[in-house]
Amino acid sequence: MKKKVIKNKLVELNPNVSVDCVIFGFDFEKLNVLLIDRGTTLGIPLALPGNLIYNSENLDEAASRVLEELAGLKNIYLEQIGAFGDPLRITKITDQEWLKAMRAEPSARVITVAYFSLVKMSDYVPQASSFAKNASWVSVQEISELAFDHLEILNTAKESLKQKIRRQPIGFNLLPEKFTLSQLHRLYESILEKPLDKRNFRRKIQKLDIIESLKEKQKGVPHKPSQLFKFNKEKYELLTKIGFDNFGF
Amino acid sequence: MKKKVIKNKLVELNPNVSVDCVIFGFDFEKLNVLLIDRGTTLGIPLALPGNLIYNSENLDEAASRVLEELAGLKNIYLEQIGAFGDPLRITKITDQEWLKAMRAEPSARVITVAYFSLVKMSDYVPQASSFAKNASWVSVQEISELAFDHLEILNTAKESLKQKIRRQPIGFNLLPEKFTLSQLHRLYESILEKPLDKRNFRRKIQKLDIIESLKEKQKGVPHKPSQLFKFNKEKYELLTKIGFDNFGF
Repeated sequence: MKKKVIKNKLVELNPNVSVDCVIFGFDFEKLNVLLIDRGTTLGIPLALPGNLIYNSENLDEAASRVLEELAGLKNIYLEQIGAFGDPLRITKITDQEWLKAMRAEPSARVITVAYFSLVKMSDYVPQASSFAKNASWVSVQEISELAFDHLEILNTAKESLKQKIRRQPIGFNLLPEKFTLSQLHRLYESILEKPLDKRNFRRKIQKLDIIESLKEKQKGVPHKPSQLFKFNKEKYELLTKIGFDNFGF
Repeated sequence: MKKKVIKNKLVELNPNVSVDCVIFGFDFEKLNVLLIDRGTTLGIPLALPGNLIYNSENLDEAASRVLEELAGLKNIYLEQIGAFGDPLRITKITDQEWLKAMRAEPSARVITVAYFSLVKMSDYVPQASSFAKNASWVSVQEISELAFDHLEILNTAKESLKQKIRRQPIGFNLLPEKFTLSQLHRLYESILEKPLDKRNFRRKIQKLDIIESLKEKQKGVPHKPSQLFKFNKEKYELLTKIGFDNFGF
């Protein structure tokens, strides 16, 4: 009995604060985001993985837990992008129908704290559970509507990623350990949403000396195999130490 | 009677979400932050201006309202720096004593959303009201403790400002319209918390061509009057259009 009380206390949900996560992945062609399908006929089924926080956990912990619960994603680095608090953000009729079916206090005002992260698509197979009936990668370009204010959150996260990749080589978190220059080039184009001159791009990257070519080429590709490269973290850290933080894209 | 009900509804406080504002000012010598003195013998009296949000307003509106209510500061640009949600952030005994005297639900968990802004000290005289017994500029370097987690919030805001001034000439918001190169130099040193070689600094700034010299010198100063400059916004906007966003400091 005592145990149950403790457990009840531990799992007390905070009806006023949620977390939502924008998880980006790259499939060598385009930028994707992890969405859950709530399998509902009420309103828009697709949403960012997110839920109310527990009163016993901090915001970062809540984001990690929710991602694991809804999409089986564990131990990833999450970065907060800010709070979203429009008083009307959960009041659309279609969202309210879903909330009434799911939550103890469906009309309580909810402020959400948004996170973003970069995941190697090859390392993670989406697994849905809890109220998520499905979890999958969806091309960012194909998303025109989402539940609640999640489209606004996604757009803010895209902007953060754009700004960030111009300063830090975080794109390497979206690629496998070994990659071709074409793949790296296409990744930057997808994130920056603009074409980048291939020769200029290669020159800039190679001048910075933060990638190194491997004595290895692609295998099993239908075209002439390309040279493989890997990221040189030591070189990059050396650059950041001297204050370098602009890739010039 | 009806009116009162409506009014009560409009002024309903959300016991779970607050806003806190880090307002920076520069006195030609050092960086300052606007603090309120809650005039309490309970706990640490100094705090960032902040309070619970109303359920009818969004987060930005709440931040503007709270600043005006506590410190008489109106119509300033505020930028969100993120949410702070440690479950223990308001539970220190000294803070709890103050909350018990002030709030209807002193033990409710409060997540706070922090903002920062830059204000010209010459344009604003702090005026305390509401529960603020005093509002004043305090040198950032002299602050070693604040109520709640406000020291952590202040440190995050300082870091944001540091990052930002390296990319955008936002420092001009802290200076009067006309300023000397020495004042600008000292401002950058205060924000970046490191000495900057004076000649290098001047060369960089002048090379960027974003300030222009006026046909005017300082008046009424006890030393040889220095040349006055003003910020050239058009030139800066031209630079940002071509993607320039690194001042190299």
